[in-house]
Amino acid sequence: MTEPTLQGYLGTVWQHLLHGVNDRHHPCRHPTLATIGPDGPQARTLVLRAANQGVATLTLHTDSASAKTSELCADPRVAIHVWLPDHRLQFRLSGTATLQSGDMALWSGLPARAQTNYGSAPSPGAAIAAPDAVASTPDPARFTQITCQIASIDLLHLAADRHYRAAFDAKTNWQGRWLAP
Amino acid sequence: MTEPTLQGYLGTVWQHLLHGVNDRHHPCRHPTLATIGPDGPQARTLVLRAANQGVATLTLHTDSASAKTSELCADPRVAIHVWLPDHRLQFRLSGTATLQSGDMALWSGLPARAQTNYGSAPSPGAAIAAPDAVASTPDPARFTQITCQIASIDLLHLAADRHYRAAFDAKTNWQGRWLAP
Repeated sequence: MTEPTLQGYLGTVWQHLLHGVNDRHHPCRHPTLATIGPDGPQARTLVLRAANQGVATLTLHTDSASAKTSELCADPRVAIHVWLPDHRLQFRLSGTATLQSGDMALWSGLPARAQTNYGSAPSPGAAIAAPDAVASTPDPARFTQITCQIASIDLLHLAADRHYRAAFDAKTNWQGRWLAP
Repeated sequence: MTEPTLQGYLGTVWQHLLHGVNDRHHPCRHPTLATIGPDGPQARTLVLRAANQGVATLTLHTDSASAKTSELCADPRVAIHVWLPDHRLQFRLSGTATLQSGDMALWSGLPARAQTNYGSAPSPGAAIAAPDAVASTPDPARFTQITCQIASIDLLHLAADRHYRAAFDAKTNWQGRWLAP
């Protein structure tokens, strides 16, 4: 393997994230979003909708009635995690989420089937008597875009010859530094 | 598909976790552990070492000098997350971690290569001048077992006909209940 460089690794992170947006079979399609809930940490899979290296943002979608929405309103700090088994790469991104609900331009671009994900009654996570005791009326007001402003990235590469770890921060203009793995 | 049952789903969770312990290619081999760090949520991949349904524990290994160890000492609450793409299943387990370092019986069972993961200088996450500016002297005192006492499990199944979601709690003896997905 060519000796890796900090800027090479930073490019690798964003290239894979972009692949995830465009390829439903790429591991970056389904990152894990960790938040802080009232009873401790919470982690769940979301679909990565956009990745923009220029402004350091990742975009996800959720239902305004979901627990993660109320968690993010109480504490907007997020961790986004991906493990790429074939590449033996781990990406850990940290940042702050902002929420925007009811964007009609985005809503009208969603397939009808996707729209049914926003509007279930009762709300996601509510107890129901049977697995089918839930109905959905698509509701654009419930459709919520989560924009994660990324402040730092930690990359771990379990290469065959050694383990590489690097960290990148918005504050230092993403110049990067090596860390002990 | 046969109509799923709560106890069937609970069995599915633990069966997959056990497969992860024994099969390095199973997605449960590499769960994501989320904790609360000083600057917000943290999430990273770990190797699942044991899963015991009878006492509701999952076992992981780490280095006592790692950031996750100090995070868990400050706040032992954990979330453990797995997404199984082929089954369209998500497992979210919540609980509390206890740490035990320096177990010589476990240590002597580790392959020599695995032992080098415990004892790097400088410590994991410390800045280094070059990617190879780190040495490792295997140190059994740094080898730390994380036992996660699981208090609740949230399962989501994105089946072809509908989405199923179920929750299980130690407090109610794991009897389970359906949730709106």
